[in-house]
Parts: sequence; C-alpha cells; structure tokens
Amino acid sequence: MTEKEAYADLGATTQEAMDIAETSMDIVRTFVPDETLNDRLRQKAVHSTGDIEFQHLIRCQNNPVVAGARAVLDEQPIVTDITMAKAGITGRGHDCPVQKAIGNGAELAAETGMTRTAASVLELDKQGVYEGAIAVVGNAPTGALALADCIEDGTRPAAIVATPVGFVKAEESRKRIREVADEYDIPAVTNVGKRGGSGLAAALTNELIHVASDARDGEVDLTAHE
Amino acid sequence: MTEKEAYADLGATTQEAMDIAETSMDIVRTFVPDETLNDRLRQKAVHSTGDIEFQHLIRCQNNPVVAGARAVLDEQPIVTDITMAKAGITGRGHDCPVQKAIGNGAELAAETGMTRTAASVLELDKQGVYEGAIAVVGNAPTGALALADCIEDGTRPAAIVATPVGFVKAEESRKRIREVADEYDIPAVTNVGKRGGSGLAAALTNELIHVASDARDGEVDLTAHE
Repeated sequence: MTEKEAYADLGATTQEAMDIAETSMDIVRTFVPDETLNDRLRQKAVHSTGDIEFQHLIRCQNNPVVAGARAVLDEQPIVTDITMAKAGITGRGHDCPVQKAIGNGAELAAETGMTRTAASVLELDKQGVYEGAIAVVGNAPTGALALADCIEDGTRPAAIVATPVGFVKAEESRKRIREVADEYDIPAVTNVGKRGGSGLAAALTNELIHVASDARDGEVDLTAHE
Repeated sequence: MTEKEAYADLGATTQEAMDIAETSMDIVRTFVPDETLNDRLRQKAVHSTGDIEFQHLIRCQNNPVVAGARAVLDEQPIVTDITMAKAGITGRGHDCPVQKAIGNGAELAAETGMTRTAASVLELDKQGVYEGAIAVVGNAPTGALALADCIEDGTRPAAIVATPVGFVKAEESRKRIREVADEYDIPAVTNVGKRGGSGLAAALTNELIHVASDARDGEVDLTAHE
C-alpha cells in the first residue's frame, strides 16, 4: 500500500475501494482547502456528507486535530453517544478503547424522564470515563447538553466531536458545547446549522485517528501545528 | 404511551426523548406534505438529515412503503451493507432478523480486488439472502451496483433502500438501482444527488418498520394504499 493509498481511507483495503477513496478525496480537495490540519476535518465532513458546502459549517476550537490525534496516540478512550456512531469508528490505525454511552444510566433515565442518552452521559461521567477521552456526540442533542454540564462541573475531555442533528435542541446543544469549549479551553469540532449526525461524527473522529496514524508514520509533525 | 407519542419515534422511550421526537416531527410536517404513505419517507429523510430540502431528493418506485411494511410484517430479513446502517435499525416494532453483508465474501474480495462490500453482497446473494428481503445499502456504491447485478440475475428483494453517499459512483449506483427497480418492478426508495449515507438508509428503513407497526395497530390500512 502506498502512502497515498493509505491516506485515502483507512476503511478501504481492496484495490477498487482504495481507487474509489482516492478519487473521492481528490475531488474533495478540488473544493476544500488543504492548508491547515483543521482543513482535514472540513475535507472529511465534505467527504462523508457528499456536500461540498458542508465545509463552511464546520467549527474548530482549540486545535482539535492536534489534541485529538495526541489522544489517539495516547490510546485514550473514544466514547460515543449511541451505537451507530460507535459502529462508524474505524478499527484500524489506533488502539483506543471505543465505547458507547447509551445503555448506561437506565435507572436515572427512568427516574427523571430525561433522555436515555443524557442519563448515560451523566452516568459515565460519574465513573470518570470522559476525563481525557475523545467525547463523540453524533446524534443526541441532550447527550451534548449533558456533556457540556459535565465540563462545567470539572470534566476535561481531550477533545470533543459534537454533531447532533435535527430541528429540536441540536443547534442549541452544539452552541453550548462551543461555549464551554471556549470557556474551559477544550479542543472541539462541531458544526453549525441543523444538519449533522452519527455518520459525520464518526467520520470526523476517524480523521483524528487518521492524523494520528500519519503522525506515527512521520508524515505529519503535530508539534509544528501547535 | 399515547398513539401520538408512539408515532413520533420508535427509538424514544423517556418523556424528554418523546417530547423532542414529537416536536421535531411536528416541525418536519410543517415543511413536508403528509398526503401519501411515501411522504412518510420524505418526512423521515428530512428528520434524519436535518435538512428540509432533502424531501425533494427522495425517489420512490413501486410503492416501497407498502411493500417494505408488508415485508416487515412477514418478518423478512433486513440486510444492510455495513455495520453502521445495521446499528441504526431500531430493535423495536418488528421481529425481522437484521444482518449486515460486510464480513462475507472476503475471499472473493481478496481474489478479485473488488470492494469488500460488493463481494459481500454477491456472496450473500449466492446464499439466497436477498430473495424477499429488505435490501439496505447506505454507504457503499459498489454494494448497490452489486445488488443491481443480482437483481438482473434474477434475485427479487421485497424492497430496496439505497442511499450510498459520495462523489464517486454513488449517484451512478442509485441510478442503476432505479433502472433495475423499474425494469423488474422492485419497490425501491433511493435519493438523487451526491448526499445520502447510512444514517439516512437506517432512518428510511425504520420508517418502513414504523408503518408496519401502524398497520399492525390498525392505524394504517396498507390495502388502501395499493
């Protein structure tokens, strides 16, 4: 596998898949700048949504690519909100434990009536799971809001990927993530608008893993981007 | 749980989640017609993408909602291309076995260099898995192209949900699905354009399950829509 092929897509292993992934990223780079490490998140967002305009909806705070890649190299946990985002995280190029929040906190959800995702985030945070982790919220606005609460209460994830989708609370939840990221200097990648979702969140997280692989291979010097 | 709450989202079980799901669908219905059963797929597409324009990108052929709901009621298998789409299929409201194609056909992929997804679809088709099944392709254009080949070779899924995303072969693969759906009278829901993805595919499939639940509960009369 050549370096270029390896870059194209960690998920592509056969010749045809690598050809498709390479051609696809070439097209993406025709439309999205390739100047900063954060541009790789914009490229990946375009790649995963199939929409060249999506690049303009991505917001990066506190150098999320460097922080995320370092967390990957340190084998910190990747914690997603729901099963679907977890399923989208590549198994290649990292040794991070990957876990999902949903499934935890069932009692809290039943007692309070809050969403299962919010309860699961609060429950995992109580166990210290988010400290130093890559916190990924792809689907659930209330999961992102709960994560913001945890950060206000002192939790410090290594990086946040938050792209909840939809018409109710999704934008608000990402705005709140940006506020706490700003206030407590947490590296974060989010999007604006009502779009988003687990596929986008997984793709952005996979790009952090990809940059970590490139750093490990000496193709990217993370210190040069700090 | 009231009927309205049950309708809002099979995935929502707590009060807050149901409130969000209901409000969200109310907003969606402000923008998307609610006149035909196929409109439910358009609503769901908008709901899952967070984009009210997405309704115009959905293409329905041969009454996919009725055919899909009947297949769900008949407990036919739901077969997705990749893990992520499978992870997005609700566990509630149906007794269909849900399986993914990826992971099968590894030898064929290694021998030929074709994508793992395409090889997995061809392998499962050899086993007869797609006959009468709900065939879901959310991610892999080559998976959709392989499925179209299988249909040309005589396989008849009960319904197809095909929404591969991206810049290379994705549009082409959906166009080919539409051609074989047309030629062999296969019920199919697809989208046009470069967007799509596993989240959309899972959401559309979940709506087939949802309509089946409504039919089971007597809220929808499928025969009235044939």
